[in-house]
Parts: sequence; C-alpha cells; structure tokens
Amino acid sequence: MITDKPAEIAPSAVVYPGTVVGEGVKILDGAVVGKQPALSPRSTAKREELPPAELGPGTIVSTGAIVFAGTRLGARVIVGDQACVRERVKVGAAVVMGRGSLIENDTTVGALTKIQADAYITAYSTLEEHVFIAPCVVTTNDNWMGRTEQRFGNVEGPTIRRGARVGGGAILCPGVEIGEEAFVGAGAVVTKDVPPRVVVVGNPARVLRDVPEDELLG
Amino acid sequence: MITDKPAEIAPSAVVYPGTVVGEGVKILDGAVVGKQPALSPRSTAKREELPPAELGPGTIVSTGAIVFAGTRLGARVIVGDQACVRERVKVGAAVVMGRGSLIENDTTVGALTKIQADAYITAYSTLEEHVFIAPCVVTTNDNWMGRTEQRFGNVEGPTIRRGARVGGGAILCPGVEIGEEAFVGAGAVVTKDVPPRVVVVGNPARVLRDVPEDELLG
Amino acid sequence: MITDKPAEIAPSAVVYPGTVVGEGVKILDGAVVGKQPALSPRSTAKREELPPAELGPGTIVSTGAIVFAGTRLGARVIVGDQACVRERVKVGAAVVMGRGSLIENDTTVGALTKIQADAYITAYSTLEEHVFIAPCVVTTNDNWMGRTEQRFGNVEGPTIRRGARVGGGAILCPGVEIGEEAFVGAGAVVTKDVPPRVVVVGNPARVLRDVPEDELLG
Repeated sequence: MITDKPAEIAPSAVVYPGTVVGEGVKILDGAVVGKQPALSPRSTAKREELPPAELGPGTIVSTGAIVFAGTRLGARVIVGDQACVRERVKVGAAVVMGRGSLIENDTTVGALTKIQADAYITAYSTLEEHVFIAPCVVTTNDNWMGRTEQRFGNVEGPTIRRGARVGGGAILCPGVEIGEEAFVGAGAVVTKDVPPRVVVVGNPARVLRDVPEDELLG
Repeated sequence: MITDKPAEIAPSAVVYPGTVVGEGVKILDGAVVGKQPALSPRSTAKREELPPAELGPGTIVSTGAIVFAGTRLGARVIVGDQACVRERVKVGAAVVMGRGSLIENDTTVGALTKIQADAYITAYSTLEEHVFIAPCVVTTNDNWMGRTEQRFGNVEGPTIRRGARVGGGAILCPGVEIGEEAFVGAGAVVTKDVPPRVVVVGNPARVLRDVPEDELLG
Repeated sequence: MITDKPAEIAPSAVVYPGTVVGEGVKILDGAVVGKQPALSPRSTAKREELPPAELGPGTIVSTGAIVFAGTRLGARVIVGDQACVRERVKVGAAVVMGRGSLIENDTTVGALTKIQADAYITAYSTLEEHVFIAPCVVTTNDNWMGRTEQRFGNVEGPTIRRGARVGGGAILCPGVEIGEEAFVGAGAVVTKDVPPRVVVVGNPARVLRDVPEDELLG
C-alpha cells in the first residue's frame, strides 16, 4: 500500500501491494482492495497487466466489499457493504454505491451519482453526473447473450445522462441511452432510448408524461 | 460480547464489543456482528449513537453475513449466508432471511416471516407476522428518487400485512400496503395498495382473483 | 483438504476438512469451501450427512464465494466473487458463475453453461449444457409460496434445455421448461413452457418470433 497519510484499515481486510490510498480512507472488515481479475477463458473482458487500485481521500470501502486493480475511485466515495467494483472503472467524487451493488469492468461513473443497494451496472456502461440508480436496477450489454461472432465489437452498456433517475428493479436493454433528467419508473423494461426529461413506465417502457419542473436539477 | 451462555463463534467472524448474544447462538465464518454504520453525508438515515446488536437464543448469523449495531434479532432467527441487516431493525422470532437478502434500516419484521434469497427490504418497511417474501423481491420507499426537498418526511416503505405472500422478482412501489393474506404474483409491479386475500399479477399489477380458501392461514 | 496436487489457497480462505481439490485449483481471499448447511427447522431441503465438496482441476473459487459440502464442481469452473453454490449441486466442466450469483441446493448445471452476475437459480433446477443465464435472472420453484401441505412434493424448479438463453432480469415461474435454443427477452415473466427456438418477451411472456438461424448452436 502506498500512502504517507493516516488511513484506517481493518485487520481482516486484504489490501494488495501498490494500492494507492488517500488521506482518511477507511477499509472495513473483510474488504479486499486491489485484486487482479481471474478471467474465464471465454470472458470478453480485456487481458492486460493492471495498475494498482487508487482510492481518493475520504473514501470508504465497506465490510466485505471488493475493489479491483486498475480502478480509480475519487474522493469521498462510499463502496457499500458486500459491494464490488471491477477492473478499469472510473468513479467520480462523492459517488455512493449501496450494499451489494456491482459495477462491472470498463465503466465510468460521474460525480455525485448514487447507485443504490443490489443494483447491477454492466460492463462498458457510462453514467454521467448526479444520476440516481434505485435498488436492484438491471442493466445489460449483449443482445446476442454470448452467441455468434457478431457480438464481439457490439457489446454495449447503457449511457445514462446527467441527472437521470432509474427506478427500482427497472431493466435497461443493451446500448440504450437514458436522456438527461429522464425518469424511468420502477419495474420498467427499457427497450429503446428514452428522451430527456420524460417519465417512462411499463413493459416495454412507454412515455407517460414530462418530469415535473420542480424535480429538475436545472 | 456480553454472554454467559454457550455460543459458537467462528474464528474468522468479527463481533463488536457489547453485542448481546443468547444461548446457542452461532456466528459463522467471516460474519460481522454489531458494526456501526458509516453513513454517506447524503444519506437520509438517522445519525445517533447506536446501542449494541442483540441476538436472541438459537439465532444463526451465517457465513459472510452482517448484522449492524442498534438491531435486535429474536430467538431462532436465521440470517442467511452473505445476507445483511442494517441498523435499528427489529426482527421477530423464527424469521428466516435467505442468502444475500438485505433488510435496510428502521424496519420491523414480524415473527415467522420468511424473506427468501436476494430479496431487498427497503428502509422504513413494516412486515407483519407470517409474511412470505419470495427470492429477489424489490421494495422501494422514495417516489422522488433522491430529488427535491419534498421527499424528506415522505420516504415510506411498504406495509406488508400478516400472511401476505409476494412472488419472485415482484416490485413494490413506495408506501404501498399489501393486504392480509394477499398474493402478489411473480414479476408483478405493484403501484397501489392490494386488498386483503386477493391475487394480483402484471405490470402494473391488477386483481386476478381471490386467494383460494385452502391457502389462507385463517 | 485432500490433494497431492499443487493448488493455491488464500490465507484468509476457509476450506473444510475432507474437501477434494484438483490440480491447479485456486481458492481466493475469504472464500469458504465445504461448509455443511445450517438449515431452518422450516426449510424444505433434505437433511442428511453430506460428503465433502469436490473441486475439479483448474477450478477457481473467487473472493468471498461459498461452496457447500455435498457439491461437485467439474474442471475449469469459475465461481465468481461473492457467489454461492449450495449443497448437492452438480456443476459441469467450464461453467462460469458470475459475481454474486447463487445456485440453490439439488440443482444440476451442464457443461459450458454461463450464469451471469447476481442471477438466482432456485433449488431443484435443471440447466442443460451451453445455457446462457443473463445477469439478475430470477427463478422460482413453489407456486404456493410456503403455504399448504400440498406444496410438499410439488416444489419444482425450471428445466432449461441445451443452448437456451434467458435475458437480464427475466423471471421464470415454478416448473416451466425453456425449450432448446429458446430466447427469453430481458424482463420477460415466463408463466408457461417456452417451445424450442422461439423468442418470448413481455409480462406475461408471449412468443414474438423464431430465433434467427445464425444464432443457433445447431
């Protein structure tokens, strides 16, 4: 671990050599930080030597959570209990990841975004700033579900624009874009792009109305 | 740990000082009991000094599970592998929590209720006695999804009455009441209250028929 | 642990006595292998003395994962981080289980099948070879949800035939059969059997079209 700043690491936590730790970082019981991926021969994730994990000042990696090598968490990030952040992920300042949530490899998450408990963010996703992902949201990135050669180069996670909100248990199909400040209702199954500042609900999701003015970030 | 009764604590478990442990309690490998919350500056959970966790006689906290301070589990409760119970939760006798399930803060769960694997019980929920929550059920408590000042004081989890059953992957919108002995079908998205002793299905959920007499607790 | 072959066990992993470990097995930080079940008095799982877990050559049990006694994993299986495999499960060669996924007791999984992150495979399920289970898929096995005596002997997981694919967050009702090479769309709620080589979508799921020829294994 590389730091000359005071940090707080639980005795049962495992921090891999080279991990860069900012001032005031806390790593709680049983957490694992800086592990290298052990990929399946059939995984589509890239294979390369990964640089150490970096944790910004004031960041907390909670009980039983995992942060992979090659990932950079900004300042004051909270990785919830039993959550997991895979390799080559960039997480902005003050992001909160709820208990049990997962951010897969090669994903970018903007500052102030909140990913609630048990939500699943697939590989190659983009979440901009101030996004809200409710509990148990499901995202996907492969229309072929592991079949055909065609899928290689076509794996595409969602793009979730600034200030968008995605409701509990909603499901995003591969490659959809959720527009700025859009609102996806709980349980919606989103099969195509959602325009900015509208509310969508249902399976498949359809536009219901505009997002009320007083709920916009502006 | 405070106990003068025989209990079984795995060497790799972490039990915080002051935890109250009943006779015959088992705490399995890598479990963590009695931790204080590390809240986000933006969390809506209350901030206060929390009393120790209490585990009733015969209760089992399984492998890798977490039980927070300020929470009281009754007798013969099973907290499944990799499950989690947040702070200020009251869990009645003989409740079973499946592997990976989560009960968020400030929630009450009645005796004999069964919460199956990977189910998500949001903060400020009420589950009465003999409720059945199927695997991967999703509950929610915030219609504003973290936006507007209005939401403060309006965050409201579901109320699930005695003997109600909620099917696999069903989603409950904020504040809904599921009536006594009601039956929510798998995959239903419940947007409004469900009357007692009826079956609802679909997205959005609609009443399909009455619950058969022979399935009622009476 | 029974092996005379080189294997790699993290110091913080727990491997129960008698576990049979093939050549080149890796057991990562905080993983637990070979634990006996601690069943609820009300669980429907069978009660018996269980033989040790067996891990085939080249198999990896990742960080914080759990593999129960009485379970046999084939060669080159990957059990992802924080995943769990219950007792009396048979897993074929080269199966991949994503992070956080769960296979419940008394289930069989064929070779080359891929179960992605956070997917839930209920007890008494059959997955044949080369099946694809997308992230956060939900399966169920009890139409009575823990009520009536009738349910005993009627608990039935899904049967998922060779080469079938089940999309992100899809929900399978108890006992359904997903036909060979069928394709269940993301978010579908499957209430009855799905014929071979068709695509189903929606809640409840309906047939949309045939699976394209070029996506079939043949």
